[in-house]
Amino acid sequence: MSVTDSARPPAGPLSDLLIIDLSRVLAGPYCTMVLSDLGARVIKVERPGIGDDARHIGPFKDGKSAYFTSINRGKQSIALDLKAPGDRAIFEALLETADVLVENYRPGTMEKLGYGWETLHARYPRLVYAAASGFGHTGPDTGKAAYDMVVQAMGGIMSVTGHPGGPPTRVGTSIGDITAGLFTVIGILSAVHDRAGAGAGRFVDVAMLDGQIAILENAIARYATSGEAPGPLGARHPSITPFAAYRCRDAHIVIAAGNDALFRSMCGALGLEKLPDNPRFLTNALRTENADTLATVMEAQLRQKPAAHWLAALDAAGVPCGPLQNVAEALAHPQVQARNMAIMTAFEDGTPLMAAGNPVKVSGYDDPATRPKAPALDEHRDTILKEFDLK
Amino acid sequence: MSVTDSARPPAGPLSDLLIIDLSRVLAGPYCTMVLSDLGARVIKVERPGIGDDARHIGPFKDGKSAYFTSINRGKQSIALDLKAPGDRAIFEALLETADVLVENYRPGTMEKLGYGWETLHARYPRLVYAAASGFGHTGPDTGKAAYDMVVQAMGGIMSVTGHPGGPPTRVGTSIGDITAGLFTVIGILSAVHDRAGAGAGRFVDVAMLDGQIAILENAIARYATSGEAPGPLGARHPSITPFAAYRCRDAHIVIAAGNDALFRSMCGALGLEKLPDNPRFLTNALRTENADTLATVMEAQLRQKPAAHWLAALDAAGVPCGPLQNVAEALAHPQVQARNMAIMTAFEDGTPLMAAGNPVKVSGYDDPATRPKAPALDEHRDTILKEFDLK
Repeated sequence: MSVTDSARPPAGPLSDLLIIDLSRVLAGPYCTMVLSDLGARVIKVERPGIGDDARHIGPFKDGKSAYFTSINRGKQSIALDLKAPGDRAIFEALLETADVLVENYRPGTMEKLGYGWETLHARYPRLVYAAASGFGHTGPDTGKAAYDMVVQAMGGIMSVTGHPGGPPTRVGTSIGDITAGLFTVIGILSAVHDRAGAGAGRFVDVAMLDGQIAILENAIARYATSGEAPGPLGARHPSITPFAAYRCRDAHIVIAAGNDALFRSMCGALGLEKLPDNPRFLTNALRTENADTLATVMEAQLRQKPAAHWLAALDAAGVPCGPLQNVAEALAHPQVQARNMAIMTAFEDGTPLMAAGNPVKVSGYDDPATRPKAPALDEHRDTILKEFDLK
Repeated sequence: MSVTDSARPPAGPLSDLLIIDLSRVLAGPYCTMVLSDLGARVIKVERPGIGDDARHIGPFKDGKSAYFTSINRGKQSIALDLKAPGDRAIFEALLETADVLVENYRPGTMEKLGYGWETLHARYPRLVYAAASGFGHTGPDTGKAAYDMVVQAMGGIMSVTGHPGGPPTRVGTSIGDITAGLFTVIGILSAVHDRAGAGAGRFVDVAMLDGQIAILENAIARYATSGEAPGPLGARHPSITPFAAYRCRDAHIVIAAGNDALFRSMCGALGLEKLPDNPRFLTNALRTENADTLATVMEAQLRQKPAAHWLAALDAAGVPCGPLQNVAEALAHPQVQARNMAIMTAFEDGTPLMAAGNPVKVSGYDDPATRPKAPALDEHRDTILKEFDLK
């Protein structure tokens, strides 16, 4: 595959890969964004007229979705009706050349179109086929639809997020979709690696619900050892103390003094030199047992001065700490800026839009502070048809 | 590389890869757990005497860390003092054969040991070197330490998690570490893919803070279009409605009716047939604008009957919905069980421990319901030295 097109992403470790992307909204498009940011070419195959549903989900600017734009920068778009013979022929020609097909339909949808894994694998034996779905392609709930909110609730993360006795709390970003997207990237790259040896493509089946279980970590360990399902703990870590948000005079800060040496340094920075010798706080286990008491003692001191004072003192003592930043502050942070994590892309008409950068920095490749724009629906039809000798 | 050892993971798409793992606690070990679950061989190089710090972080069972065990199942362990000449020779012999080196030290640590990227790349040109750190290997804050809590606070996710006007709220799992771990896997597999073509290893640099920015998605789009930093929204989606937790008679459930057709179906299932024609709820944009009013109307009806009744009605109408499950309920859920997402591994002495399974299902490979045990410190020293002809 050798193509030059303005919508191609900059070179990266995946530049030789062609991804055909049937996915919509978030889990699938997030997966292909990550692949694209690492150099892969992504051709979005969208429904004629409507396109990716995310085009119609806010926030909007001048009628165009910033949500869609941020996730689909650097991709190409062709609108194909997969029930129409002419368009099916185009789709199949793309699959002849493609390395990977990504979709996030409800299981069974591709089979109805005649494009189930068995069929495609027989016809395109080297094609890697990745499906991200709510509940996965096996099991009693395979046919059900799920959205982020559903898997956050069913997968347990909401049961450990929030404050004790408080109302249900969603993780504030679509962690159900995003986690599934990341595991789908991992499945795709694993299957592409496997293909280099074995020669054959594989079917990668990632369920959003499975992804939620996979990120519960410590919460499962606590349940497995105690037999009791853990509850939410507000803003502190379940088994490391002090490791939480604490209130200063003007704002909260977080302090993460994860071991005895750091705890001692922290106490010095806070002017609480005697605290490490208090029998209730001698070890991490004791500090965790007495976490509320310790927080009360610490906050009595912290409230005397503003957050900036304490952050400077803790920093100087080498104690991991930080401010609670909102999205504007986070994006403007010098380290975030220095790492190109707030990049500029553009709406389909060229209007600039800030979006998150690529967190996977690979030596020898540029990590640009701008990314190509998101495509208009069907924008690359002519380019693609010409390139693949389809007209 | 051909080895048989009881601690080897089952075959998978990455079975031909050897990973040397210097990492401790969570981001790095989570990364190598994902690689191991996909078949890669992981040799943990631990500090003599102490080992991975996670061995000393709870929850414990009979003095052994369930936290450590769940994340390090299926890996091998050798204890090496990287300042002692004899052990350095062993480490270097491992690197001769290895495909990937993973570490999550504070930047600069490996250089002090004489194992910085430039040095290792010159000596082992095919080695992929992946570093996960708090702030990354470039930028003004590169030398600072960070823990999960710090990057959750600085990266903005805490600013959109929780309830309006409520106290700071941490995502209840270590999403800062886990996200960095997943991006590190993606960087490693991208670099391994790249190496197959170019022949040379790459340096992969993943920062926990960068990973937090990368998962903000919609929150950045909202800030970029409105100029205002978004706040927390409790348990609802910022731009899709109804898409939230709602209270029934006995418990909350989540309902995710992401488009007009699903909203109509939902209203039917709830016996609120006239609601779709209410001018305040005609479109998703209007429903989002009037989200609180809509929730009040819905909950007045939902409170008449228990959660189970409404879930059955919504399910029958094809509306995505689900119960708010705690960790015990999530792990026992039939779909989670059917997908082998609650697997059994074991402490180093063989005592069984339940842990999360592998969410990346790849056709043609087994997805076992058990995984090999976690290693005792230095357990595989003799095996490894013999295999690599080092004694």
